[in-house]
Amino acid sequence: MNKSFGIASSVIIVFLCLIYAGIAVSQKKEVLPAPNGIHIPEGYKNWKLISVSQRSDNNTIRAILGNDVAVQAARSGQTNPWPDGSILAKIVWQDAIHEQWPTATIPGKFMITEFMLKDAKKYSATGGWGFARWLGLEQQPYGKNADFVQECYSCHIPMKKNDYVFTHPVIMP
Amino acid sequence: MNKSFGIASSVIIVFLCLIYAGIAVSQKKEVLPAPNGIHIPEGYKNWKLISVSQRSDNNTIRAILGNDVAVQAARSGQTNPWPDGSILAKIVWQDAIHEQWPTATIPGKFMITEFMLKDAKKYSATGGWGFARWLGLEQQPYGKNADFVQECYSCHIPMKKNDYVFTHPVIMP
Repeated sequence: MNKSFGIASSVIIVFLCLIYAGIAVSQKKEVLPAPNGIHIPEGYKNWKLISVSQRSDNNTIRAILGNDVAVQAARSGQTNPWPDGSILAKIVWQDAIHEQWPTATIPGKFMITEFMLKDAKKYSATGGWGFARWLGLEQQPYGKNADFVQECYSCHIPMKKNDYVFTHPVIMP
Repeated sequence: MNKSFGIASSVIIVFLCLIYAGIAVSQKKEVLPAPNGIHIPEGYKNWKLISVSQRSDNNTIRAILGNDVAVQAARSGQTNPWPDGSILAKIVWQDAIHEQWPTATIPGKFMITEFMLKDAKKYSATGGWGFARWLGLEQQPYGKNADFVQECYSCHIPMKKNDYVFTHPVIMP
């Protein structure tokens, strides 16, 4: 094989690898919308605290955060109903045991993020809330088609008197 | 009794009540510093999420928030040691059971807020961390004198290899 051809082909291979890596990185950043068209809210990791919870039926521990509209509503007790524009984020981890404190349950493997978006008119068929869920660190949208929200909504119906929301905002001084 | 005297005394009583109410309100807002001189950090309720936990030994559920220095360190994995200026807030509630989901543990009565302030030089006697705790919604400082930090520090010594911090920041996508 000709030496300059070898160098040229190496340069091309490196170049193609860089393009591929670039695509991979940009693909990783893009989270697909849920089947009902809801996009994952920007910056939800930076939202303020609404509550926390732990479920022994599926061994998960959770943080519930809210966007500014939701947090203002929560802290002023105006959550029945929550105002339009409120978004609640539930971030869910598998239970883990603290290595130095065996009676402490802490977040282990990251599981899912779930969102409820309040728009009384737009989402009137599901209690005024739009539902969406993304699975795992790869943030795979949940649901085969838009009907997945029926599963979410039916589970939330027992909370109708609390505007379909399980979470009670925490009391803080 | 003279009528004008009666009106004047009523005005004085109302005036004194207003002063008293004003003092009561201003006293309610002022949180006393811990016995080691640490003041409760401003705006900690608005800090971002570091982790959550639940303890079955004392039936409490917790949110761990961080100031900007701490959150930046947590999200870039630079927490061993945590940088000077990091503050971690632990907000603690009594366990409660969700009224519609009996296997869900949620925050009940508010219990305490605890803080760890990192300053490797200033707090070198206690692992580089200043400790402080306030009790209840009335935010009563914990500890009879500055020696209370020995109780905090001795409990944190098993975590020396993790810069004396029990909390492992959560993984999020």
